[in-house]
Amino acid sequence: MTATSTAFDFKVRDLGLAAAGRHQLRLAEHEMPGLMALRAEFGPTQPLAGARIAGSLHMTVQTAVLIETLVALGAQVRWASCNIFSTQDEAAAAVVVGPEGTLEAPAGVPVFAWKGETLDEYWWCTDRIFDWSAEAEAAGADWIGPNLILDDGGDATLLVHLGRDFEAAGVVPEAAAGDSGEYRVILETLRSSLAVSDDRWTRIAAELKGVTEETTTGVHRLYELHAAGRLQFPAINVNDSVTKSKFDNKYGIRHSLPDGLNRATDVLMGGKTAFVAGYGDVGKGAAEALRGQGARVIVSEVDPICALQAAMDGYQVSRIESVLGEIDIFVTGTGNKDVITAEHLQGMKHLAIVANVGHFDNEIDMAGLEAVPGVEKVEIKPQVHEWRLPTGRSVLVLSEGRLMNLGNATGHPSFVMSNSFTNQVLAQIELWTRPAEYPIGVYVLPKHLDEKVARLHLDALGVELTELSPEQSSYIGVPVEGPYKVDHYRY
Amino acid sequence: MTATSTAFDFKVRDLGLAAAGRHQLRLAEHEMPGLMALRAEFGPTQPLAGARIAGSLHMTVQTAVLIETLVALGAQVRWASCNIFSTQDEAAAAVVVGPEGTLEAPAGVPVFAWKGETLDEYWWCTDRIFDWSAEAEAAGADWIGPNLILDDGGDATLLVHLGRDFEAAGVVPEAAAGDSGEYRVILETLRSSLAVSDDRWTRIAAELKGVTEETTTGVHRLYELHAAGRLQFPAINVNDSVTKSKFDNKYGIRHSLPDGLNRATDVLMGGKTAFVAGYGDVGKGAAEALRGQGARVIVSEVDPICALQAAMDGYQVSRIESVLGEIDIFVTGTGNKDVITAEHLQGMKHLAIVANVGHFDNEIDMAGLEAVPGVEKVEIKPQVHEWRLPTGRSVLVLSEGRLMNLGNATGHPSFVMSNSFTNQVLAQIELWTRPAEYPIGVYVLPKHLDEKVARLHLDALGVELTELSPEQSSYIGVPVEGPYKVDHYRY
Amino acid sequence: MTATSTAFDFKVRDLGLAAAGRHQLRLAEHEMPGLMALRAEFGPTQPLAGARIAGSLHMTVQTAVLIETLVALGAQVRWASCNIFSTQDEAAAAVVVGPEGTLEAPAGVPVFAWKGETLDEYWWCTDRIFDWSAEAEAAGADWIGPNLILDDGGDATLLVHLGRDFEAAGVVPEAAAGDSGEYRVILETLRSSLAVSDDRWTRIAAELKGVTEETTTGVHRLYELHAAGRLQFPAINVNDSVTKSKFDNKYGIRHSLPDGLNRATDVLMGGKTAFVAGYGDVGKGAAEALRGQGARVIVSEVDPICALQAAMDGYQVSRIESVLGEIDIFVTGTGNKDVITAEHLQGMKHLAIVANVGHFDNEIDMAGLEAVPGVEKVEIKPQVHEWRLPTGRSVLVLSEGRLMNLGNATGHPSFVMSNSFTNQVLAQIELWTRPAEYPIGVYVLPKHLDEKVARLHLDALGVELTELSPEQSSYIGVPVEGPYKVDHYRY
Amino acid sequence: MTATSTAFDFKVRDLGLAAAGRHQLRLAEHEMPGLMALRAEFGPTQPLAGARIAGSLHMTVQTAVLIETLVALGAQVRWASCNIFSTQDEAAAAVVVGPEGTLEAPAGVPVFAWKGETLDEYWWCTDRIFDWSAEAEAAGADWIGPNLILDDGGDATLLVHLGRDFEAAGVVPEAAAGDSGEYRVILETLRSSLAVSDDRWTRIAAELKGVTEETTTGVHRLYELHAAGRLQFPAINVNDSVTKSKFDNKYGIRHSLPDGLNRATDVLMGGKTAFVAGYGDVGKGAAEALRGQGARVIVSEVDPICALQAAMDGYQVSRIESVLGEIDIFVTGTGNKDVITAEHLQGMKHLAIVANVGHFDNEIDMAGLEAVPGVEKVEIKPQVHEWRLPTGRSVLVLSEGRLMNLGNATGHPSFVMSNSFTNQVLAQIELWTRPAEYPIGVYVLPKHLDEKVARLHLDALGVELTELSPEQSSYIGVPVEGPYKVDHYRY
Repeated sequence: MTATSTAFDFKVRDLGLAAAGRHQLRLAEHEMPGLMALRAEFGPTQPLAGARIAGSLHMTVQTAVLIETLVALGAQVRWASCNIFSTQDEAAAAVVVGPEGTLEAPAGVPVFAWKGETLDEYWWCTDRIFDWSAEAEAAGADWIGPNLILDDGGDATLLVHLGRDFEAAGVVPEAAAGDSGEYRVILETLRSSLAVSDDRWTRIAAELKGVTEETTTGVHRLYELHAAGRLQFPAINVNDSVTKSKFDNKYGIRHSLPDGLNRATDVLMGGKTAFVAGYGDVGKGAAEALRGQGARVIVSEVDPICALQAAMDGYQVSRIESVLGEIDIFVTGTGNKDVITAEHLQGMKHLAIVANVGHFDNEIDMAGLEAVPGVEKVEIKPQVHEWRLPTGRSVLVLSEGRLMNLGNATGHPSFVMSNSFTNQVLAQIELWTRPAEYPIGVYVLPKHLDEKVARLHLDALGVELTELSPEQSSYIGVPVEGPYKVDHYRY
Repeated sequence: MTATSTAFDFKVRDLGLAAAGRHQLRLAEHEMPGLMALRAEFGPTQPLAGARIAGSLHMTVQTAVLIETLVALGAQVRWASCNIFSTQDEAAAAVVVGPEGTLEAPAGVPVFAWKGETLDEYWWCTDRIFDWSAEAEAAGADWIGPNLILDDGGDATLLVHLGRDFEAAGVVPEAAAGDSGEYRVILETLRSSLAVSDDRWTRIAAELKGVTEETTTGVHRLYELHAAGRLQFPAINVNDSVTKSKFDNKYGIRHSLPDGLNRATDVLMGGKTAFVAGYGDVGKGAAEALRGQGARVIVSEVDPICALQAAMDGYQVSRIESVLGEIDIFVTGTGNKDVITAEHLQGMKHLAIVANVGHFDNEIDMAGLEAVPGVEKVEIKPQVHEWRLPTGRSVLVLSEGRLMNLGNATGHPSFVMSNSFTNQVLAQIELWTRPAEYPIGVYVLPKHLDEKVARLHLDALGVELTELSPEQSSYIGVPVEGPYKVDHYRY
Repeated sequence: MTATSTAFDFKVRDLGLAAAGRHQLRLAEHEMPGLMALRAEFGPTQPLAGARIAGSLHMTVQTAVLIETLVALGAQVRWASCNIFSTQDEAAAAVVVGPEGTLEAPAGVPVFAWKGETLDEYWWCTDRIFDWSAEAEAAGADWIGPNLILDDGGDATLLVHLGRDFEAAGVVPEAAAGDSGEYRVILETLRSSLAVSDDRWTRIAAELKGVTEETTTGVHRLYELHAAGRLQFPAINVNDSVTKSKFDNKYGIRHSLPDGLNRATDVLMGGKTAFVAGYGDVGKGAAEALRGQGARVIVSEVDPICALQAAMDGYQVSRIESVLGEIDIFVTGTGNKDVITAEHLQGMKHLAIVANVGHFDNEIDMAGLEAVPGVEKVEIKPQVHEWRLPTGRSVLVLSEGRLMNLGNATGHPSFVMSNSFTNQVLAQIELWTRPAEYPIGVYVLPKHLDEKVARLHLDALGVELTELSPEQSSYIGVPVEGPYKVDHYRY
Repeated sequence: MTATSTAFDFKVRDLGLAAAGRHQLRLAEHEMPGLMALRAEFGPTQPLAGARIAGSLHMTVQTAVLIETLVALGAQVRWASCNIFSTQDEAAAAVVVGPEGTLEAPAGVPVFAWKGETLDEYWWCTDRIFDWSAEAEAAGADWIGPNLILDDGGDATLLVHLGRDFEAAGVVPEAAAGDSGEYRVILETLRSSLAVSDDRWTRIAAELKGVTEETTTGVHRLYELHAAGRLQFPAINVNDSVTKSKFDNKYGIRHSLPDGLNRATDVLMGGKTAFVAGYGDVGKGAAEALRGQGARVIVSEVDPICALQAAMDGYQVSRIESVLGEIDIFVTGTGNKDVITAEHLQGMKHLAIVANVGHFDNEIDMAGLEAVPGVEKVEIKPQVHEWRLPTGRSVLVLSEGRLMNLGNATGHPSFVMSNSFTNQVLAQIELWTRPAEYPIGVYVLPKHLDEKVARLHLDALGVELTELSPEQSSYIGVPVEGPYKVDHYRY
């Protein structure tokens, strides 16, 4: 039995969703002009021929278009989700079956992801994207590893680094007292691996030409790894492409936050008082969306520059403690932990809604909430829970405190993801075709590629771009074809 | 077998959704402070005791809270939906079972409604709310009819008027050449009735103390009936209460239009060009919602005043023909027919989205679209259809051209409906308790009741109302407790 | 010496501003397409031939275009301002000189108005518009009175009514203890009149065919007069034309409030907290303008419907006392008195800005402020005063608490006034040409004229109006050419 | 006669505006909390003692507060404006007189600036800030030069570099055929200087410890100079502090664009179609302001990323040629030349308004406009000109095509400038007190100082900043006191 069929059999065939998924892919392709343009531009030259990509990123319909774009450019791919709740099963099924395949003869990409994984299952899936034995067998090779990672949040990268460290140490350490449940699962996963092979992760790490990382949190981890001298391969920080961070984070959240609130609760946002923790790109998008629906928005910030921006944009800026009892809807998007504590949760209005659109579920102290004596958790519907508190009041927590735009809605819409993923594909091409340019380190894409991503999305929106005249180009010292801005330009 | 159990058995018991519905009702009650305040204020005095209400209004969770409020004020109620797609089955089930009932011993209200009725079924359901034989039997009476109608769109009122007319004529006419399919169903329904009784509708009409009508279209019909001298009982135009038309139409659509677009298509509105036909309250809400999501909005209008308002609010105002090929999302909210014709549909961009939030499905010429030679209709998912045109392009039509905010989403949110329905309850109380004030005619609620509806919704939003000092009250000649405005004030 | 030259000589010739004023009129005409269209449509038929109009309305550049439109339609006109601060002297001069006149041979309209009148001068000017002795002399008549009033705020109308009452009583009463200083001036004015003639106002009242009233306050007075059976001639309430109240009040204030704040203080609105008292049309425009500049806006309201609207539009709604110390900019637009009291003023932040855009200066208790022991008033520049309070803090009061959009800026812009004034001209034509339709009472313009006003302003904005097809017209029962809405429609 | 009295006598004493200026300074200080906080923090330690600052920056009230802050920190200062139209004479007078001085005994700073300089006067003024002979005389020194430049647009820096180059060459070259009129004036200025001294600019350049540059254009020149190896002293790029570029450019223009339009034209923006060339920070602020006033905004861009941002923010993005005839108001903010050409100007609507908020007046091809055969220029009022074109149409050009927010209004408001200028002061302190950190090159301020600028402005807006807990600080690896973001963060 091949790994492909394993993934397929494990969950997907039962669901029988492939056909529905293929339908959705077709519509998504219409909304992802950047990726389709890359297929047209690079399909003939196959720049990713020979690339073997281990992908860990929310397994949605949009990701399916990304995966098939990578394949269209010559890559081999294996995929897992980077979140236990975010998989759209029909998208996973569609990718496994592939554009030409059937349920009996899948011709797509092995995907290890389904909606509602346990943590054990999650890390098993992540492990699977590094196991290319089926491909080795098919190629008649003794062993093959992936040579590129496409990561979101850094879990795949983390697994390689930890695996290699423990192999070097010869042992996987015991979990320490304060370690999270999830970290214990990772240790267990690697302990099983070490029992089978003492150099699996070492070989994988050596084979990897680099990783392209999607999100703030993953990028932060990469900079930390590199600062500590531990980074094993080059990394491209896709998150900080303008067409990613300023589009995915801001415009994506602007779209998906109200979508998730609606699907979860159907509550009118108009007239409500909403609290947005963090006024980075995510918070800016969240605040704009809520205001656009007629909510009064109060923002909190730790960074005085962002706080001043929020004030200049007309928002009240307050500490959560100052306004706790006035708020109907809480939204966290800080990238930090304990932004909403168990104590905060107990001081809120009855049936206040609490939602997280930052990266990890610890923005809201869910563990602390669970530990409140006498608290009761009632499922209103999947991903919507009423927590009845000893105070007699309840709070509604969405998606268990995880990313509500993925858990309660369908994540960022295709057009936004087309920007992010066009960056991803260009970054994969950079690492694969120009390795000499990228010694171990963390890089952002050169500005001309960032601008290219934007350019590939203009026609679909009916945008007419003005062109510099040669005289204007010369006057400001900027080439007619760009790049148009200095690197530190902030947009 | 009682009528109650008929309704219950017919669809609801099978669904087994009552418990889920009761859960949702509890949350909706929190968002409907106006109705809950009426229960508190009027529960003890039972002003609707003796009232027998035939209700025809979208059978949603919010309507469930309305129904149970009417019951809490002493009324007996029977209910149908006013739209074949808009019923939320779990809400219907919850109402049938009732707050105290069980599946085995339903203690609620007979509801005749389910999601996805045929036209035959729809008019059968509407007929059922006028059949109070079960209640007569329970009361040991020979015959009982409803004495109040609560209507949305006027179908229940229409049936009574047509039924009575045909009984007077002694015959139901044959359908004429141009008659719609739906009108033929109505004729058939009444033909069956006339076969059984030649005075059923005449007796019902005589018994009725009045109707309270929810929506523009129904109100329009009432004014026409009255102008023609045919109106049989007084009518209260709830639609034109400020707290209805300015809230339901505007703020409701602002909420539910993007919600429906998201659930139907997941398409990013940001950057798209959207066309909103009509800049009445519905169009104002639609345009604001789309702009709030970053769409560029183009408006069309026939009324120069509304057109000038749209321009002053910063929107481009164009005829649909002038911009047809630029538009990604079309929204109709005019109350008129053929706003988007089959010819328009064939000139649109590939995969343009077409959605109606006006009242009837003929805002978009669906019949004309079906009649285009070679057209193909592909279901993407329920209520989302791709129409493949002979031009090689497709359009995506939502909810078959019917109300997409009901078909693709869950309609107006509870808080908005709490305003509308608090008006409804007050209007029912007016007709029932002060019949002398309302000879046959069409009325709006007195302003002090309209203001009361608003007042009952302020605390939930944390609004502090300022109170006139006696000197201020005297200076402007307005009582401290209101009403605060002249009747023609426009808000 | 004729009255014309009196007005001219008294202030205007000295100013030598006529040429500058004529320049501004030419630009204003471009922004007043409604008035220019009326000149084109009605110039040939001279519907106002024979009309003698006594006008009392802010003597701005826009009013100059109105006056010359009235003349172009055949009327004779005399004019005063309705506010002591609002006259633009160059506009007054331009009107006196007239389009064809020179400083030596003025060929325009007698205007009695200059910026910065005393109350004595103000009422003398108002009296002058009723003295048509120069016109009588020119016509060889014994006596001529005006036969129409065009009023703003009702002062001209008030003078006629009081004058006639006192003539009937044979005596002007002594001022009572609580009478305002202004009322004392009125009494003195009429006392002088009565000394000269005992039937002057009685004759004038009898001659008048009606008044067209511009503003809320004046309309309120008219309804009160009529309710008391004291109204002497018909009145058209121009204020409540949709194209007036919804445009002048809302869009005019949206423009002129920030303009006045800027000219008065140059203070950045972005990031500031602003308080808007009243959420009628004026308050809606004020709040939108402040939010559009990045201010956080808090609204106060006494009417629960308007309060709920403010909340639905995303504003915090609070009583002034609850937020007094947080506010940087206070704006009143209620039409009521003592909205900001002397006590409020003493509790504000240092250098808080206080501005009134309602009608009368008693929205802010200026008398109370002056009476605070130890208060000191420092002129920063004309119409901007720092009031130093005994608390050690100061407040900045604009335009002495009177209309700051007139005192600190230039009032509503031409395009807005073109809407209001096109209504005024149509109303004057109605009263003059169809007196039988208007027995004594207070009327709004028929909807088709209101729609006509809007229609005359669309081309200038590039608005394309959609036209109903005959089928659509018939389907909704609305003529192709309008009127399109029922009278109670709220827009 | 001292230089101080020269400047003073030349223009200022005659104006007698000092007292009015001191009044305005007092109010401006209230709106410039950052500068006042620096006086409080650094006044006691006098970090700028010994610094001799040659300042070239718009001589407004806000700059006056900057100048007096520099003095309060120990510096000696001489000042010119960087624009011939932007000086507020009362501010210049107030600074010359000084807080403690009188007209007879000025105790302030020598200022060489007045509203409406000729180009000859402008460069004479700029030359004056480098002539410290009066200070030398007062100090009993043989020669003293400035040791710091505070520049806006780079004219002061340019003069030093050109002067030194020509001294090295021993000759000032003749103007070439294509040289601008302004460049010819510069050559003449330096030719006069060289006639007197052959090492004046060489000594000045050697003495200078650096320049702090305010604006995009000046920064661009500095990077070019440095890239060419010609930069003579270190430069701090104040423009690219977040609290400068994101606040001054965006929020400043949002404020001052509508202010300038209002003061120049009083034209209603609502309903108009406005064109904004450039969607950088300036364009973003312009577009937001116009939309906030109800205009429909069309944007043009050459950079695909900014173009995509504009689309995502809901604006139509078009080339100017595509929409030329639809536009009522044109605004340029690109930093490039010939954005609006003479040909464009001739194709516009009658009385279209044309305004520039970019840096130089060549964004609009004024020279080309003047050269149109038969064109006629009519002054409506100062800084507002109607250009009558041979087409029979006119355009209204504001401020002769120069910065209209300075020419037609009063520039950025104090609060915005407080951000920019707090950066300036901190940058001057950096260059003066830590020269070792800044070898020749172009630098931005370290992030912790940028954040400090923001922090000093929060209290005035009532902003509550949230503080990281130690656990949160450690979790994200960011100090509690900041800096909070990586250098490439875009805000």
